[in-house]
Amino acid sequence: MSFKLLARRFYSSKIVKLTSESYPNIKRDSKYGKITPQTIEFFQNLLGSSSTITDNDLLSSYNEDQMRKYKGQSQLCLKPKTTEQVSQILKYCNEFKLAVVPQGGNTGLVGGSIPVFDEIIISLSNLNKIRSFDQVSGILKVDAGVVLETADSYLAEQGYIFPLDLGAKGSCHIGGNVATNAGGLRLLRYGSLHGSVLGLEVVLPDGTILNSMNSLRKDNTGYDLKQLFIGSEGTIGIITGVSILCPSRPKAVNIAFLGLDSYEAVQKTFQRAKNELCEILSAFEFMDKESQLQTLKFLKTSHPLAEDGEEFPDYNFYVLIETSGSNKEHDDFKLETFLESVMEDELVLNGVVSQDESQLKTLWNWREGISEASTFDGGVYKYDVSLPLPVMYDLVNETRTRLQDADLISIDDSTKPVVDVVGYGHIGDGNLHLNVCVREYNKNVEKVLEPFIYKWIQNKNGSISAEHGLGFQKKNYIGYSKSEIEIKMIKDLKNHYDPNGILNPYKYV
Amino acid sequence: MSFKLLARRFYSSKIVKLTSESYPNIKRDSKYGKITPQTIEFFQNLLGSSSTITDNDLLSSYNEDQMRKYKGQSQLCLKPKTTEQVSQILKYCNEFKLAVVPQGGNTGLVGGSIPVFDEIIISLSNLNKIRSFDQVSGILKVDAGVVLETADSYLAEQGYIFPLDLGAKGSCHIGGNVATNAGGLRLLRYGSLHGSVLGLEVVLPDGTILNSMNSLRKDNTGYDLKQLFIGSEGTIGIITGVSILCPSRPKAVNIAFLGLDSYEAVQKTFQRAKNELCEILSAFEFMDKESQLQTLKFLKTSHPLAEDGEEFPDYNFYVLIETSGSNKEHDDFKLETFLESVMEDELVLNGVVSQDESQLKTLWNWREGISEASTFDGGVYKYDVSLPLPVMYDLVNETRTRLQDADLISIDDSTKPVVDVVGYGHIGDGNLHLNVCVREYNKNVEKVLEPFIYKWIQNKNGSISAEHGLGFQKKNYIGYSKSEIEIKMIKDLKNHYDPNGILNPYKYV
Repeated sequence: MSFKLLARRFYSSKIVKLTSESYPNIKRDSKYGKITPQTIEFFQNLLGSSSTITDNDLLSSYNEDQMRKYKGQSQLCLKPKTTEQVSQILKYCNEFKLAVVPQGGNTGLVGGSIPVFDEIIISLSNLNKIRSFDQVSGILKVDAGVVLETADSYLAEQGYIFPLDLGAKGSCHIGGNVATNAGGLRLLRYGSLHGSVLGLEVVLPDGTILNSMNSLRKDNTGYDLKQLFIGSEGTIGIITGVSILCPSRPKAVNIAFLGLDSYEAVQKTFQRAKNELCEILSAFEFMDKESQLQTLKFLKTSHPLAEDGEEFPDYNFYVLIETSGSNKEHDDFKLETFLESVMEDELVLNGVVSQDESQLKTLWNWREGISEASTFDGGVYKYDVSLPLPVMYDLVNETRTRLQDADLISIDDSTKPVVDVVGYGHIGDGNLHLNVCVREYNKNVEKVLEPFIYKWIQNKNGSISAEHGLGFQKKNYIGYSKSEIEIKMIKDLKNHYDPNGILNPYKYV
Repeated sequence: MSFKLLARRFYSSKIVKLTSESYPNIKRDSKYGKITPQTIEFFQNLLGSSSTITDNDLLSSYNEDQMRKYKGQSQLCLKPKTTEQVSQILKYCNEFKLAVVPQGGNTGLVGGSIPVFDEIIISLSNLNKIRSFDQVSGILKVDAGVVLETADSYLAEQGYIFPLDLGAKGSCHIGGNVATNAGGLRLLRYGSLHGSVLGLEVVLPDGTILNSMNSLRKDNTGYDLKQLFIGSEGTIGIITGVSILCPSRPKAVNIAFLGLDSYEAVQKTFQRAKNELCEILSAFEFMDKESQLQTLKFLKTSHPLAEDGEEFPDYNFYVLIETSGSNKEHDDFKLETFLESVMEDELVLNGVVSQDESQLKTLWNWREGISEASTFDGGVYKYDVSLPLPVMYDLVNETRTRLQDADLISIDDSTKPVVDVVGYGHIGDGNLHLNVCVREYNKNVEKVLEPFIYKWIQNKNGSISAEHGLGFQKKNYIGYSKSEIEIKMIKDLKNHYDPNGILNPYKYV
């Protein structure tokens, strides 16, 4: 499966406030040094002038996130070309207690790669070589700054596939994917990065280079140190190289887009799909009616399940099923047999199956377009949560009820701040995306949503961040997903590996 | 796939020397306390007398490993029934600096679960309940002491499969599997435990209980602490509970057993199988001629590829391919098409495909029997290594040549200590098992083998322990697979989490 979003994600075009102004309670830590002309001279000598960015106009794109929600005040962005340069940078910064923030493709959704104050930005974008690929084992070795799509296109030529796919693939870096333990669309089939990453090259805060890039698929000699850096969001080391096991590229891909009546039917259909499609099931995504109505406004084209003459069909839930296999005929048969059986049992009420690559992309757009569509009316509050499947959708209903009770929500009445609440996500991974689509960001809405949503998730033993990470946005909410013992151990590791706290401060934990 | 070995693994029946006698250079560390009548009284009060074993006859099976290679002198074995009891035990031992060794099913191959001196044995065998299973998500939660086969049989009834399978499944504990990061026969299909384990319950040396058992499939809030304990061999915590994601059980399983002429053909056939069998390939095991000849002596039945009238066929290499899928007809077609094409290209010279469950078991026995067969003549030196595929088999040839040059090897001449050198393993994982079959354990042989084999592996960037772990046997050899920086970080973590060093001393690192 290879598709791209129709347009780049866009958000409100308002001027972005400085993070320090939006969050006046957070103060710059005076323990950190400040950059001086000598600092800049040192880095210019080390990296060259073109890789030592001090120009304010050039700096702005590194200081702001893609959502235009966070804005830092960094005066210096460094773009090292080698691991050794990253090591020299950190050694220097550690010595002078200069805080840094590592930045990949800057596609994160929790403000993790944006400076909060004047942290030095270390952009990995110049570390962008594919190092090697082994045709027999499927082991790919890349620099951290290689763009995900670049790697996947390269692998396609070799008959392989990158075991991770996500909407931001055209911009995000593989190093950033690993640092944030990205999940995405292929997790159901190929598992998490904790299983597929075989080795990492990481620069520690003191400049030490930790290298396990030569690891083979199996190696049981000592603690698996690299695992600590997968999902560590640049707080204990900067990933500069990744070795990852890639599966064979499937020869046949099918998409079915289905209409269902209830969340109960969605769950039952998922279980049937797992058991009946088994080894060829590669995605099972669900969407509620509200998410599709919102997407309709954005895509401005009739829905794939709409009958002749109508713009939108009448189902409460939608499901996208993807199969990937090695024999088109077999997969078609399996998918048709499955669809016949779930329709006969009235779990699925209607559906279409893609007949070609172009239809396949169109169908995926109705799932992938939701993210952009959610900001269509002005903005969006995004929650990315893991919950036990049986209760997962209850959170969407209860959130809507609370907003109704507070008289803050209306699709038609433009004086209400909230337009709608939409739910969708990777049901195969127990991962719900809950988007509260708003006409404007609003403190009253925020008070209704938080900490209510976090408490609700905690109560159900869920996770407040299934795949987006903690970053700046969720730093203070980790207690809703982790115990005191766990948080203590996490802080403890942070202090152990980064005693000066120079790596990505004000975030994570 | 569900099969059992014909007989339990057996090794030389000689009386086992105490580890302290076999390795006189290793001394008991005087910093550890000794058990007193008060210690025993404390534990009797905590656990009851039947779970506080002090009787020498009863202790012997806990003091000796299955290979009969290591023998400890523990005077106390504790069998807690709850996690809370494990916590109380460690709290007490930490306070009085009493060294302990955690023990699961005692099926390890590197002496990791056997005391070296008088360490207190903590057996997890009474912590053996299946806690829960979720039919929709496939998440299984078990006590650490649940036997692997028990869990897999339970899952079979629910239409699921445990994502790990190994020869010792009838005895090994799931907690032990996780503590040693067991690989086994299903890794090619279901990936490593670092990907499939979702949560752990672990008791730390000071008695703290770290619990992530409620984790869902996705959770990006903080460092993934549980990963540190996967493969830590009981040196920084004792695993008491495991939550693991289980896949749907395949409805169709096929086995093909093939004869090939060269290791080059084995590699090419593997690559073809990956690309052509793709999603249904679940095992690709290779065996050399010598391994099959050794197994012939043990199984005493004609080889599956032998023609009428002959006992043994004439191929240099053998391959076992397993496919697992949801549709027997589709899988048969894929496997037949694949086999026709590799035979047409003369990569594969001959082959049989299992027609029923009993044939399937018979074919697996010729692969799984090698381990026992290797000890048939008296004993075996076992090496479990990861190597890049192109050079993997060279190690077998070079080891044989060295033994020939030293005049130490002969199949027929019973005055020579070594019978034969055999190579086999999970080629899909780059994992070679190199067995040196001997008539007796012999210092001259050892000198020829070590450190030669470890140096050879280091030179090829391989791992000296692909799946067996370090334990007691390979503690001193970690430097052949890990850099000084990595070893320092590993030691550092050990000291950080277990400052008194009470957990599994004299081992690992």
